[in-house]
Amino acid sequence: MRPLRSAEVIAVGSELLTPSRLDTNSLFLADRLRAIGILLRTKAVVGDRADDLDAVLRASLGRSDLVVLTGGLGPTDDDLTRTVVAAALKRPLHEDTAISESIRQRFARRALTMPEINRRQAMVPEGATVLPNAHGTAPGLYLEVGEHVVVLLPGPPRELEPMFDAVVRDHLRARTAGTRVYTRIVRVFGRSESHTEEAVRPFYGPWASMALPIEVTILAARGAIDLHLTVNAPDETAAGEVLVPAVRQVVEAIGDDVYSDDGEAIEQVLARQVTTRGWRIGVAESCTGGLIAKRLTDFPGSSAFVEGGVVSYSNAMKTRLLGVPEALLAAHGAVSEPVAEAMADGIRARSSAEVGISVTGIAGPDGGTAAKPVGTVVFAVVTPDARVVRTRTYPSFGRELVRDVASHAALDMARRLIAGLRVP
Amino acid sequence: MRPLRSAEVIAVGSELLTPSRLDTNSLFLADRLRAIGILLRTKAVVGDRADDLDAVLRASLGRSDLVVLTGGLGPTDDDLTRTVVAAALKRPLHEDTAISESIRQRFARRALTMPEINRRQAMVPEGATVLPNAHGTAPGLYLEVGEHVVVLLPGPPRELEPMFDAVVRDHLRARTAGTRVYTRIVRVFGRSESHTEEAVRPFYGPWASMALPIEVTILAARGAIDLHLTVNAPDETAAGEVLVPAVRQVVEAIGDDVYSDDGEAIEQVLARQVTTRGWRIGVAESCTGGLIAKRLTDFPGSSAFVEGGVVSYSNAMKTRLLGVPEALLAAHGAVSEPVAEAMADGIRARSSAEVGISVTGIAGPDGGTAAKPVGTVVFAVVTPDARVVRTRTYPSFGRELVRDVASHAALDMARRLIAGLRVP
Repeated sequence: MRPLRSAEVIAVGSELLTPSRLDTNSLFLADRLRAIGILLRTKAVVGDRADDLDAVLRASLGRSDLVVLTGGLGPTDDDLTRTVVAAALKRPLHEDTAISESIRQRFARRALTMPEINRRQAMVPEGATVLPNAHGTAPGLYLEVGEHVVVLLPGPPRELEPMFDAVVRDHLRARTAGTRVYTRIVRVFGRSESHTEEAVRPFYGPWASMALPIEVTILAARGAIDLHLTVNAPDETAAGEVLVPAVRQVVEAIGDDVYSDDGEAIEQVLARQVTTRGWRIGVAESCTGGLIAKRLTDFPGSSAFVEGGVVSYSNAMKTRLLGVPEALLAAHGAVSEPVAEAMADGIRARSSAEVGISVTGIAGPDGGTAAKPVGTVVFAVVTPDARVVRTRTYPSFGRELVRDVASHAALDMARRLIAGLRVP
Repeated sequence: MRPLRSAEVIAVGSELLTPSRLDTNSLFLADRLRAIGILLRTKAVVGDRADDLDAVLRASLGRSDLVVLTGGLGPTDDDLTRTVVAAALKRPLHEDTAISESIRQRFARRALTMPEINRRQAMVPEGATVLPNAHGTAPGLYLEVGEHVVVLLPGPPRELEPMFDAVVRDHLRARTAGTRVYTRIVRVFGRSESHTEEAVRPFYGPWASMALPIEVTILAARGAIDLHLTVNAPDETAAGEVLVPAVRQVVEAIGDDVYSDDGEAIEQVLARQVTTRGWRIGVAESCTGGLIAKRLTDFPGSSAFVEGGVVSYSNAMKTRLLGVPEALLAAHGAVSEPVAEAMADGIRARSSAEVGISVTGIAGPDGGTAAKPVGTVVFAVVTPDARVVRTRTYPSFGRELVRDVASHAALDMARRLIAGLRVP
């Protein structure tokens, strides 16, 4: 039989179409399937309507080797996954008395009588393998249909997840080619998505035509770009033989704008840089309002290299807590290179930090002027060896994004300065 | 023409099929469409494959009045929504030079040259209305196709959301039947989801049997509970006649734990409390690492009442910048009520803030002891009139959740203290 390579997940339940509920089972399944070399091709959420489920199921079976349906296996009228699948596959349903007996006992253990409607959960399509449910009444079902596999799993994650790990994975693995998916993530800051793609596009052709072809996905979020290089390989060594040189090519093409070649966060990169030097970081923030300190302390163990910081939202705080001279503020304004530099020097002088990082700017929506429009942000980084002061403008980004991008830019400036790279 | 009643959302992007990325735009769209009386019938996530997108799009058009596609409007090779939709609807693409010019200017404002590939974003299917994008390069597209409507929106939420609210909603509303959904949100902190539900459950029956029945949804996230009271009504007056008394019932049943009866954030509630008194807030944070200052400054206009803060991650910072006596730290430890109180007093003394808020705790995963396990957090709030110091334990929450819940708890303690309520 052909090995399973592609999958679709169909989540069933009208509640998953409301604004407050999200199908998270598909994330779990994407992860587990990827690990055994099966790629998710589409996913869908369908309400409790037989005609919609039937149409989506048939389309999925036409495209992919494996279809996993989650939810809709309960005992009530609106639980229709079992009957729709049986009808679509032309597999009549029969009651499995072992299942109805075990559901009956489950109720009995709680001194309850099984409601008659629960017998529906004991109906099994002809030829299906029953997957026991250790955490609920609805068993899962596993069907081989020609070259395809169809799996029905209960909706609650605490039932679905153990069922997948205990039973489904082994069934599926026996039908895969034995490969799995390996990914390397290269992270970039300081250029646009299109400029990143321009730099790496020449590799696409050669990578796609290799014996183990590399797929590339480019993700842009909050000013940072992630390049995902993915290969389907029999083992880690084979994957590395393909991915390691490809990552090297990307790093050479993009240069200093690469801050990580293995998916590390900028905070973690910076953490490594300062801890190897025995340094600590102090932060002086105005427009980012504590976000940089928050990001640096998001990671466990950050007390080893984060001294702390001052959120100097008012001018008085800049003067009193960071020692920025009032005359400097009066002469240049709070959003200026001299003030940013004085803030970074100030946090170093008033803490035990070797590295001072400061940000002052106009996040908006108000407070802009012709000379300093909303989105103007000034940065300073000072270390025992070097210092840098820069002004950037993020026009029309909106308050939240200005703060996000500015916090990333400050951390990236510190990375470059400490690494001895040019800071653009 | 037939009014629009049902919709499907198709999110495009291979990254949305990976275990780490979730399509959240569909939640926003479900909410906004519901508000104008259009119900979501299915949703789908499709990777960057033209054949899959074509098949899913055709199936959706066969079922629903409205199809909204999100993402895949970028400038790169794998952005194929525009071309697939144009081909499926047989609408040839033409370059709209006004769009390419505006993209060129967007790059020019940042002193960059537009990469040639960005011209793709100016391609418009025949007969489409162009939806301007105030926050990015890719415009949206609105197409009427017989009785159907097809809308293409950019993937990033900060581009999609304002575009929907500014333009798309009005286009769609002109095509709907006229009723809409009205929602009131009551926000609760300080009790569990089940205790909240117990308090309001007696109302469910009477509310459901009214002429305009109220639907209730309870959402719990990061320690806070939101109650959504929803009614489908012809206009705002009719909705208010039902919702206003219902909200009053909820507030009476839950009491002081209600911090907002109209969906306001805790930061905004506190902002109103202090600005009416002419007060300013200063924050002294240890384990929350800047998160409280960041939250208070998330909102425009926060410089009117936020003085700033100190992130005293190290003991040295607590002593040097907040004046916490070394002897106090030695005697009680950094996570203790005397130190929390000294931190709140310290930030008041060293800034112009009338309200001092402090947090010190063990966010984990390391650093716990038998007496002070991971998840122990100590809070202090001091105002000109009153003060409160409290210790809470958030066992087994995990680092991120401890920090989130602790930041909310600190703000809520300040709310209660300033309002003269008992602080439990």
